[in-house]
Order: sequence, then C-alpha cells, then structure tokens
Amino acid sequence: MSKRVSFENDYNTGCHPRILAALSKTNDERTTGYGLDRYSDEARGLIKDACRAPTADVHFLVGGTQVNLIVAAGALKPWQGVISAETGHVNVHEAGAIEATGHKVLVVESKDGLLSADAIDRYCQSYRDDPTAEHMVQPGMIYLSQTTELGTVYHLKELRAIRQVADRWGLTLFVDGARLASALAIEETEIDLPALAELADVFSIGGTKCGALFGEAVVIIKDSLKSDFRSLVKQRGGLLAKGRLLGVQFRELFRDGLYMEIGRHENDMAAALAAQFSVRDFEFYTPPTSNQLFVLMDDSEEKYFSERAVFERIGKQKDGRRICRFVTSFSTEKTEIDALFAQ
Amino acid sequence: MSKRVSFENDYNTGCHPRILAALSKTNDERTTGYGLDRYSDEARGLIKDACRAPTADVHFLVGGTQVNLIVAAGALKPWQGVISAETGHVNVHEAGAIEATGHKVLVVESKDGLLSADAIDRYCQSYRDDPTAEHMVQPGMIYLSQTTELGTVYHLKELRAIRQVADRWGLTLFVDGARLASALAIEETEIDLPALAELADVFSIGGTKCGALFGEAVVIIKDSLKSDFRSLVKQRGGLLAKGRLLGVQFRELFRDGLYMEIGRHENDMAAALAAQFSVRDFEFYTPPTSNQLFVLMDDSEEKYFSERAVFERIGKQKDGRRICRFVTSFSTEKTEIDALFAQ
Amino acid sequence: MSKRVSFENDYNTGCHPRILAALSKTNDERTTGYGLDRYSDEARGLIKDACRAPTADVHFLVGGTQVNLIVAAGALKPWQGVISAETGHVNVHEAGAIEATGHKVLVVESKDGLLSADAIDRYCQSYRDDPTAEHMVQPGMIYLSQTTELGTVYHLKELRAIRQVADRWGLTLFVDGARLASALAIEETEIDLPALAELADVFSIGGTKCGALFGEAVVIIKDSLKSDFRSLVKQRGGLLAKGRLLGVQFRELFRDGLYMEIGRHENDMAAALAAQFSVRDFEFYTPPTSNQLFVLMDDSEEKYFSERAVFERIGKQKDGRRICRFVTSFSTEKTEIDALFAQ
Amino acid sequence: MSKRVSFENDYNTGCHPRILAALSKTNDERTTGYGLDRYSDEARGLIKDACRAPTADVHFLVGGTQVNLIVAAGALKPWQGVISAETGHVNVHEAGAIEATGHKVLVVESKDGLLSADAIDRYCQSYRDDPTAEHMVQPGMIYLSQTTELGTVYHLKELRAIRQVADRWGLTLFVDGARLASALAIEETEIDLPALAELADVFSIGGTKCGALFGEAVVIIKDSLKSDFRSLVKQRGGLLAKGRLLGVQFRELFRDGLYMEIGRHENDMAAALAAQFSVRDFEFYTPPTSNQLFVLMDDSEEKYFSERAVFERIGKQKDGRRICRFVTSFSTEKTEIDALFAQ
Repeated sequence: MSKRVSFENDYNTGCHPRILAALSKTNDERTTGYGLDRYSDEARGLIKDACRAPTADVHFLVGGTQVNLIVAAGALKPWQGVISAETGHVNVHEAGAIEATGHKVLVVESKDGLLSADAIDRYCQSYRDDPTAEHMVQPGMIYLSQTTELGTVYHLKELRAIRQVADRWGLTLFVDGARLASALAIEETEIDLPALAELADVFSIGGTKCGALFGEAVVIIKDSLKSDFRSLVKQRGGLLAKGRLLGVQFRELFRDGLYMEIGRHENDMAAALAAQFSVRDFEFYTPPTSNQLFVLMDDSEEKYFSERAVFERIGKQKDGRRICRFVTSFSTEKTEIDALFAQ
Repeated sequence: MSKRVSFENDYNTGCHPRILAALSKTNDERTTGYGLDRYSDEARGLIKDACRAPTADVHFLVGGTQVNLIVAAGALKPWQGVISAETGHVNVHEAGAIEATGHKVLVVESKDGLLSADAIDRYCQSYRDDPTAEHMVQPGMIYLSQTTELGTVYHLKELRAIRQVADRWGLTLFVDGARLASALAIEETEIDLPALAELADVFSIGGTKCGALFGEAVVIIKDSLKSDFRSLVKQRGGLLAKGRLLGVQFRELFRDGLYMEIGRHENDMAAALAAQFSVRDFEFYTPPTSNQLFVLMDDSEEKYFSERAVFERIGKQKDGRRICRFVTSFSTEKTEIDALFAQ
Repeated sequence: MSKRVSFENDYNTGCHPRILAALSKTNDERTTGYGLDRYSDEARGLIKDACRAPTADVHFLVGGTQVNLIVAAGALKPWQGVISAETGHVNVHEAGAIEATGHKVLVVESKDGLLSADAIDRYCQSYRDDPTAEHMVQPGMIYLSQTTELGTVYHLKELRAIRQVADRWGLTLFVDGARLASALAIEETEIDLPALAELADVFSIGGTKCGALFGEAVVIIKDSLKSDFRSLVKQRGGLLAKGRLLGVQFRELFRDGLYMEIGRHENDMAAALAAQFSVRDFEFYTPPTSNQLFVLMDDSEEKYFSERAVFERIGKQKDGRRICRFVTSFSTEKTEIDALFAQ
Repeated sequence: MSKRVSFENDYNTGCHPRILAALSKTNDERTTGYGLDRYSDEARGLIKDACRAPTADVHFLVGGTQVNLIVAAGALKPWQGVISAETGHVNVHEAGAIEATGHKVLVVESKDGLLSADAIDRYCQSYRDDPTAEHMVQPGMIYLSQTTELGTVYHLKELRAIRQVADRWGLTLFVDGARLASALAIEETEIDLPALAELADVFSIGGTKCGALFGEAVVIIKDSLKSDFRSLVKQRGGLLAKGRLLGVQFRELFRDGLYMEIGRHENDMAAALAAQFSVRDFEFYTPPTSNQLFVLMDDSEEKYFSERAVFERIGKQKDGRRICRFVTSFSTEKTEIDALFAQ
C-alpha cells in the first residue's frame, strides 16, 4: 500500500467545502472586528434558535482548551475546583490550563469516560461531611464532555440526574461539546440542543472537530455567567480580531442543518469502520458509539494496521493489547475504510 | 455618499488573495495536528532564513494578546514585571492579560509611544537604589512594539541602546511585531529581520494585521525561553488543533516576499492618505510614519469625515480636537482614499 | 551620642506589655486550632460590638499584604482591578501581590496619598465611555488606607463621597486599616469604627503596627464577600494554626479600650516630635497628622539626625531635600524625643 | 470525668516555656523589620551550622501552607506540577493553594503516606513516553513530608533513591518538615539535618508543631532557588513585619538542642500512648512511628474515648472502624496519658 489512510483525528484536514466557500465569498468584505459584525450576529441568532434559548448569550472562541479555561475562570470562585472524570480533557490534555487559571481539577470516579450523578453526589456529600472541609477545595462546577474522550455519550436521563445533583450542591454544569455534532446525531441519547440548553448552565458547540477550520461556540444559559464575558475572553487571549471568520463559519454550520449533517456523516463512517473491525473479531475498549473508536490490538495486529493507516494509541491494557483510536470526520470517505480493509 | 469607506483598522477584511488560494488549495490534505505538519515546518524554516537565525525557535499562535501573555508567562519570574510605555498594548488593551498571568506592567515614561533606553535605565537604577526594592516588583522584561500603538517606529540606534540597557539589567527584550510588516517597510529604521533577531530575545511577526486571516509567529532567540514553550502555549489555549492553517499562511507570506510587499502597500496607502490630510492643513497627533495615522479634528471636521469613512477615535486633546485613527491594510485601495476626499 | 533612638517604623519592638501578659497567661491552655477557639470568638464579638456591626464577619490574619491580596481575591472578578493612589501600599510595596493574584492596580490621581471621590468618578466614567472598554481592566474595588502611606487621613465627608461613587459604579470599598489606631485617635476625621462599618464594604483593623506582636482583623460588612472566606484565607496561607494567638491579642486590644489608647499615644508622641521639628523651622512633605511624619531635610540636616536616630528616607524632592520618615509607636517614649533634640 | 485531655493536634497550646521566656526577654528591644535583625541572623547561622550547610539560604515564614505554595511558586515553571502522595498536605488540606499558584498536584501512588522512588520514576517515564506529553503537565518537583501526614517516615536509603530519581528527571526535591522534630528524633531513619541538607534541594524545619508559637524555617540548598526569594515571600504575604519574632524563636530552638529535645519528648509521649492502646489490643491504621498515632476504633470504643479525650477522626475503614488520630506535642504530659486510660 503506497499511502496510508488517516484516522488520526477529526482535525487533520481543512474545513467542509461549504465553509470554505463561505469564507471565500465574504473575504473582501469590510466588517468591524472582535465578533461585533453582522455574520457573528446572525450566527448567534441561528444558534439561539437551534437551542430554543432566546435569552442565551453566545460567544465564539477559537479553541477548546481556551473555552474550558475561560469558562472555569468565569464560573468558579477562587477556592473552588472543577469536578471531572479522570479521563476528562481538562484533567489530562490541557497542560494544566485549569490549574494555571487557579483551580484544582477534582477527579470523581467514572466509567468509560462518563461521570454518574451518584458519584458526583457522593463526592460532594463527602466534602460537606468532612470536618476539615474549609481546608479542602470546594466543588464549584461539573465538567462533562459530550461525546466523552472515550467516545461514549450521556443520555437524557443521566444528564437530568446530574442536573439535579448540580442543583442540590449549587454547582455550575458545563458541557464541553468539542464533538457535539457527533453526539447530537445519536438519537438514542434524546439530548438535542434544546435539551442541552435546558439542562446545562453553559456548553460549547465544537466547530474545529465538526467541519470548521476552527472555532467553538460558547452558549451561556446561566445569567450570572453572562456579564463581562467578552472582557474575560479578551484577557485570556481568546478574542479573535477578525471575529467574523467565526461568525461566517457558524452561520454556515447552522443555516440549514449542515452541523447535524456532519455529525451524522462522522457517525456513519465510524459505524462502517466498527463493523469491519467487529466482523474480524476485534474487541473495543469502550462501546463503539460516536466518531471515535477504541480498538484493542495485539502487537502484530497493530503492526499490520500501522502500515495501512495513521491512528493514535492511547495506552495499553493489562493483557498487553494496545488501545488504538480511530477517528472519523466530516471528510472521511467510505473508500478510505474500504482501503484499510482491502487485502 | 451612499457607502462609507473603512479605515477602521487593519483587520476588517479577510486575507490576501494569495493566502486564501493557498488555504483553498491545501484544504483537503490530511496532516497531523498542532503545528507538527510539513507546512508549518516549511514556514518555520522560511522565517528562520529571513531572520538569518538558524538556531531560533519559531512558533505559530493565533493572536497578539495570546503572544504577549504567553511570552510574559515564559520569560518572567513570579516576582517580576514587564516594562512598557503607558500606551503599550499590554498596559491598556488586553483587559489585564499580563496581570491575569501574575505580573505587573511597569509603566516607564515614553514619547509618542516610544520608550527610550535612558528612561528604562533610570527606572531600573531607581529600583536597584531603593532600600525597599525587595518589596517592589522587579523589572524582568522590556516590552516594545514595532510599530508602536501610535504608529511610530524604533530606529536601529535606539533599539541597540535598549539592548544595552537590557543587558545591563538582565532584562528579556521582547518586541511585539503585530504590525511588523509596516515597520519593516520603513527603510530609514535600518531594522530588518536579521537586525531584530540579533537584538531582541524574542519577537513576534504579526500575520493578523499584515494580510493573514489570523496568526502571529513567535521567534525565540534566547535559549532559556525555548524549552517546553509548546506546553506553555497549550496551557494558555494558544495551540491551534489545525495548526497547519498557520503554517500554510506564513509559508505563503514568506515564500517570495509577500510579507514585505504587504508592508510596503500599507505604508504607501497611508502616505497617500496623510498627504491628502496634510494638503488640507490637518495636523497629526504623532508623525505619520507607518500604516496608522492619528489625525487631529475639531467637531465639524470629525462629523464631515464620519459621514464618509469609518475610523476610530482614541481620545481628545486638551484643545478639544479629537485624535482620529485612520488605518490602512493590505486590502486598502487607492480608490478608497480618493473617495474619502472627493467633493 | 552612644546609641541612636529609633523612629524607623511602628513595628520595631515586640508588643504592648498587656498583650504579652495575656499571651503568657494563656500559654499553657489547650484550645482548638485555626481561630475556632473561645478567645477568637470573644475577640470577634468585641470587635463587632465596637463597630456596632452585629452581622459583620470578623477574621484574623497575620499580616497586611496577606489581608490586601486575600480581600482582592475574594472581591474581584477575574477581569477587574483595584483602584489605588499611586502611593498605595498595594501599588508600591507588596512586590506585586495583587498582580500575582491576577488583578491590575489601577492608579487614580491622588494628593498627599489621598484619593478623591471626584477622581475615582472621573476614572470610572472614562472607562465606561471608552469604546474599547471591553478590552480594558474594569474597576472593581477601591483601595484606601486610613491612615495613608503618607500619614494623612480621610474625613467623614470624603469617605461618604467615596461611598457614593462606589455605589454609583458598583465598586467594593475596602479600607486598609494597618494604622487604624492612629487614625481613630484623630477626632477631627469624625470616622469612628461604626462609621467605618457603615461606609466600607470591608476593612482591616491593624494589630501589627498598633501594639500587637502581629495580626490584622478583617471586618466584612458586605454579605457577598462573606461566604467561604476562611477557605480563601487557608488557600493563600493566611490561616494561622495557633489562631488563638490572634484572638488573645485582639481580645486584649478591644477589651477595655487599649486599641484607642495606643492610637492616642502614637499620635501624642508624633505631635511632640512634629512640634520639635517645627520649632526648628523644618518643613513637612505632607501635613503632620498621624503617627508618621515626613520631614524635609537637606544633606547636612539628614546627616545630623542620622547620627542621633534611625529613620527611613522615602525619596528626594526636586529641590534636593530628602523626605525623611519618622514613625512613632505604642512603645515610643517621650524621653526618646527629648534625646533626639538634646544638644 | 470532668475534663477531657487533648490529643487533638500538636498546635493546641502556646509555645515551649523557653521560647516564651525568650520572646518576653527581648520584647522591648528595637530592631529593624522583615527578618533583617540580629536574632534572625543568629538563628540562620545556627540552622546552617546544624545542617552543616554553610552556603544554604535560610528564611523564616509563618506557616506551612505558606511555605509550600511559595516554594512551589519559586521552583516550578508555569507548565510544571508537583508530585505528591494522595494524602500529601498540598493535595488535600491546603484548599487548593498549589493550584491557586498555577500548578497541578500530580498524584503518584503511595503507601502509608510514603512515596517510593520507583513509583515516581515510573510516573516520569510514563510522562516522557506519552506521545501527547506536550499536552500534559510536566513533573517539576517532588513533594515529600517528613514525617508524613500518616505519621510515617522516610529512611535514608529511601530518600537517597528518591534523590536519584529527582536527578534522573531534573526534579526539585522538596521536603516539608512541618513535623521534622519528631522525625529527627527517630534515629532508625538515619536522616539527620546534614543528611537532609545533602539530599533535598529545599526543605522546611517546622516550628509551629514543634514548640514554637508559629514559624517555619525554609532551608534552600539549590542555588537556582535562592535569588529574590524574599521578594517572592513578600509577594505572597509571608514576610513578617516583626520578623525578629521568628528569629528569636528559632534561635532558642537551635541554640542548645531544644528542637531535638522537643522531638524526642513528642515521640516518647506517643510511644507511651501507643503502648497503652496496644496492650488493649487496638490496631493502628499505619505503624506507630512518630508523634501522630492512627488508632482504629469501633463505634463503642470511639464513644468511650470521646468522653475522655479530644482527638480527630480522619476517615472510616471499610470494616466500619474509624481512623482516630492522637497527636502528642511538646506540652503533652505523662499524666494526660495516664488520665486517658484511668478507670
């Protein structure tokens, strides 16, 4: 095989052709900066409509770590921390962004990357009951991602239970939607954008991994998080000078269902890929659900596929098998999957 | 006049057509993420060549505030501050980004946005001589911008003197080149990229305001600033997932002189604009030098031009005249200038 | 003269004999830690009574910089800064403690160390009016000290005006009372503890410079600053394990008027000292008011007094005279003043 | 029983009588502030002698959390974290002080509160081997405490192995000696002050829990940590105005062996207490070693002792028994132990 196909991640190409066209078409227009332009306005409106959340605030940031650290900075008191799964992006892969913002990541037990309402509740109860609680970090926010780092998803019932726990303990509920398109395309979750807007205090709608060149929309539901958010974004280096680039992209994604279409495509491609692995008796580290697959491979299997495809390894099981991640994106084509399994 | 021309800023359009073409052409390619792709490699090489600095490290970030806060985070000890002009971007227009990183901005007297070696030296001497120096913020870095916020520029002799002061007091010398293209096009400064690389410890080469969609290259000369810089960038939310977008853009800017060409165009347009104002006896707040002009206008003049053009007001003089900023960019056309002054 | 008397500062001896006696008497008792003991309880009650502020929260911290940075951390949003006089302790002599907490010190013009309501109001108005306000640091708190670093004091009328400005702009009003005993002893100010508790949102009652071994009481009036303050104090290293040491000291200071007595003594001694200087035609940098005097001396005068006393120099006037600071404390004795001026 | 004896902690009384005498004796003397006085000088000299570390820097701070956060601030790069046992004080009981300083606490597996060289080495190796290491928090410092939070101690061989791992990975080795007196009194560890000074880069010598009113000496061995440490201490609110109070106390502790004597007394009392529990067939959560005992008690036992003594509960075992902490101090008397077990 002369050239390897790539399932390395969902940000290994540029953007969806329609987004490129929109950027090209608007390139010469003159607009004001920092997201105060008409494209950003329109995109904000489209997103609020899609969320059925007319009083929400919508902001456009460039990247996901930026979103996470800025939301944490805005939502937490100095003595509060963020509840996260051990595998949470904020806990593992942001080089300490949350801590550099002054806050501890409070790891609560999880399964397949998913937190449970019960585990969060027990954690908060145990904090409350501790006679030395004043000397400990107070839980202030719950960080979830939909889909999770392990490709799994929360269902409506689970998210509702977590909302109740958040209310019980006065926690901000933040949903990181870096891969939200893929999650929204899974109807079984029963979580659509209006449901998310009803349950979360703040959430992001990922563009980078869902067809855009870059960009994450932050949707703020909770009033107390709204004021001066733009100043906070500016302070942390997240306010794009040519902000309309974000507006143009999100307008295109939400104008007529492109975002949902991209999510479905990602999942369809992942399902096709999973089917091929399954038929060959491969096992998965977590159940194949969204656009990330975690396939278990022994050394010879990994070697075989390494010659045919680019993919990441996220660790090793005790039985020696590697956990190999295959990711599909808006640009994954069926022919690439066929090529991978061709003799 | 039905439609106003815009001299609002140098980031009010998309990007130079050649950059858009390069992004379009490479859009479907698959590359690895976070700037480890071949386009970024090539761009880093071109910049090092242009700076005649083969051992420099080059990183690509998205925006200027990001650059400034990350460089400060990397260069300063916790008890150190950044020397800046009162008008410095880090002092005024970053919503406290440097302070949010833990450091004080130490304002040293300046003229027309320019710091002098003498003023910096006196400041440091006075810190050293103060019997309570231990209780004060230690100067750790000099922040300059070329061009300055007021459109003025440092000349080689001045920068050399500042370098000597930096050496005398052990300060990191950082040059913010958000508008470096315009500065480089002013030959009288005698500061080209190799001179900058020789004198500064770290500097940025602005893309956002010089023809790119977005992006700033950070050139690190001083060895002690190099290690783990990518981790720092990641931690502060500055590592772009689709990093090759930055590579593609800077490769285009530095492949065959486009960056310099853009700088010359910006300055030519500004000179034409300044000439029109001069011929009408307008005065300037600072000498017209680069792509930003600061024209003094009384109320009726300001009203007149407001109907014809978009521009910013950055303050008022004691004599009541407003300081009106007119900025040219890669996309400014001669016809726009003509239109502004047409009867 | 064999031995120099010391007017170096108001923390150059141990503590008032009654405080030492109280610490000695209670030394062997066993109490719980971290300020939850009966002495601290009693001291908190005495202070609330003295302030006629039954719903205030009172906390005991060790030092003044600690107080300032912790109050800033608790009161400010991440994008807010602290308004201070140029000479404010937070601006000059805390090695960047406020900035290390993430906040900018916003210098507003002042006279003799005193801010005026007008100047603060103008500053806030100008922030509000700036079209780029989102990119600037938002004023969030006013920092005053009573007495100021230059020994001057606010009067009731001035403080009331500042309170109005604070209300107008939604600012927290914080009064640093490191030298509050001296200020309270100046009846002309018409600011007693109940007045302070009525006007400030939070203030400190200094122990270190007013007779204690160490310790500052923080009185929190504004409800939103109250919750979890002990966690914040713990996090910043300000929660003393043997917290009762602070309780014992403040109980002694507020049990029967010792704190006021110390303030009067400090001022009496300063007045005696000022009289001696005045009679010899010395001029003062700021009007002699409280327990700090700032005497202007030429070189020969400074040399003369240097041989007789320890004192600090805080700068030089343009006319070449040095600004020499003489400070009195609870332990200053009339004989020391006599000794200084003896032939 | 009318009055309960207290084994609540080792900071529930004032100070050792000799320290009180020294403070009383020097109370009226005038000295300069901030630890630049002759008592502090002398104490620094005595500590350097005791450590046989003539080139060490010694600083006196007020409390332990202060020490830990200041050392972390001084030793770590912004993208680095602190390796700690799960039970480490920095991880659990400082309300997020390390995170508020910008750094993550990296939990490495431990046993009985003790880290092993192997576990640290594996952790660092795994960081190095991770292809996404740039996106993770880099280990920068090892935090140990001697004695640990669970009363256990490191032996010379273990500390040497950890030193080697620190060297292998370029980590700063910091030993928190809040209860160092008790640890030094255990000869079997073979770790005396000179050994500590040879192996650690920086360590603290606790006063608060070892006979002083308050105070921790920080001994800096590693040259790169030395410069400007006083500015850092000031910035974090740790520089005591009447710094000589710390000097007087540490001078007394190190003048003629009082510190060691206190450690021995604490351990003797703990051993006597442990013997009484053992003879009654109580089991311990960790082996009785130093001045903290962790006794396992069922409900009726806990109730019985609660009526006779004050002590803390730090958790519950799965078998339902509570982990009850009994702590001895310089002021614990044999009669209190007898009283606890009297019928």
